[in-house]
Amino acid sequence: MIVSYDGAYFHGFQRLTKLTSVQAVIENALSQIFKQSIVIKGAGRTDAGVHAKGQVVHFDSEQLIPPENLQRVLNKMVLPHIYVLNISIVDESFHARISAIKKEYRYYICTGTIDPTKTAYCLYYNYPLDIEKIKEAMQYFIGTHDFKSFSKASEKENTVRTIELFELNINNDMLEFRIIGDGFLHNMVRIIMALLVKVGSGKKTPADVKTILTSGDRRLVPFTLAPQGLYLWEVSY
Amino acid sequence: MIVSYDGAYFHGFQRLTKLTSVQAVIENALSQIFKQSIVIKGAGRTDAGVHAKGQVVHFDSEQLIPPENLQRVLNKMVLPHIYVLNISIVDESFHARISAIKKEYRYYICTGTIDPTKTAYCLYYNYPLDIEKIKEAMQYFIGTHDFKSFSKASEKENTVRTIELFELNINNDMLEFRIIGDGFLHNMVRIIMALLVKVGSGKKTPADVKTILTSGDRRLVPFTLAPQGLYLWEVSY
Repeated sequence: MIVSYDGAYFHGFQRLTKLTSVQAVIENALSQIFKQSIVIKGAGRTDAGVHAKGQVVHFDSEQLIPPENLQRVLNKMVLPHIYVLNISIVDESFHARISAIKKEYRYYICTGTIDPTKTAYCLYYNYPLDIEKIKEAMQYFIGTHDFKSFSKASEKENTVRTIELFELNINNDMLEFRIIGDGFLHNMVRIIMALLVKVGSGKKTPADVKTILTSGDRRLVPFTLAPQGLYLWEVSY
Repeated sequence: MIVSYDGAYFHGFQRLTKLTSVQAVIENALSQIFKQSIVIKGAGRTDAGVHAKGQVVHFDSEQLIPPENLQRVLNKMVLPHIYVLNISIVDESFHARISAIKKEYRYYICTGTIDPTKTAYCLYYNYPLDIEKIKEAMQYFIGTHDFKSFSKASEKENTVRTIELFELNINNDMLEFRIIGDGFLHNMVRIIMALLVKVGSGKKTPADVKTILTSGDRRLVPFTLAPQGLYLWEVSY
């Protein structure tokens, strides 16, 4: 299933505690529909406040409900803050996370007058930003690197990732950052974005990005940008 | 003060019960700042779920805090769901509601694929709408009419209002209705909008609008469109 949701209403994707999660709402609805306990697996575990335009989840069931019927019934149960865009039948080898070969995230920074109906959907930043410096810094992330210094990842995890696209589009008062890679470590996009804001505000230089990437030292980037600007945009298989 | 807010997070503008209201949040912040009980008066009482781009409120105080300082301190306390756009000093005769000579409301209907990050900010309507019929029906509202059949107003209230502009702009999948008048009865815009949707879907005709307006019979329009599409846009003095 391709699923979009408004992260402002959930304590993240993953069912962890008694707090509302995207996973719990979808699993509860599916379990009612299938009259058996259904567990879903998501392509990525978005944190509290992070949105999804195209999260992908899979689940197993021995019953077959035609996808269009399931989509209609499920959406009645999960709206208004979750919407299932598409459901398709896949073979048993498919796994939403493990089978993914590419992911796109987007991060939105708004620089204009604060609109309270948008504070949950972009990060408002009202200080000057040097766009050319930010674009220069972004280039260092493209390619294959060890992103150890840009994650909350545990020591044992393989922290090498490949970024194939990182671009910035400016539409009036909105900066749209698109980043596509073969995978992302926990908090990686928000840490990268935090460092770019430091570069844009002159507190770091583009060259610092290179140094930090090479160092593998998380303590050099002790910042994480706010969740509300981040969207899991698309997952490819 | 010109105030914008996200109605999704409040049980309406007015402080009525123990539920969160825009008025209570602003009054509590102002009372802390001025160290005395402050009561605000708003230009219009928006219902739960209704947003404001330019609500106007006034209050009395014998202390003078420079408006820019007050705005900065107040916004730190009322964000993220309320934002004060402007504060100015007015003379004692000014009253946010009574002095208003004109108000603009906007109503947004989205017709595309549901985006759960927008369900609180427009009404999703996914059935065909006859735009020409809607535009024809809108013309009947322009001018001075008794809007008794379009309100929850009590019997004694003067229900005559003048609408000077009512226009529809279409941007891709979004219908933007702008209505400007000298005043609006309780629920008037949402009842008008509900009737227009009936016209657009063929359940009523443009000519029915004229009949209903003349009748003064509320029972002929037993519908109210959802609050999330409605914005109190601007108040003029």
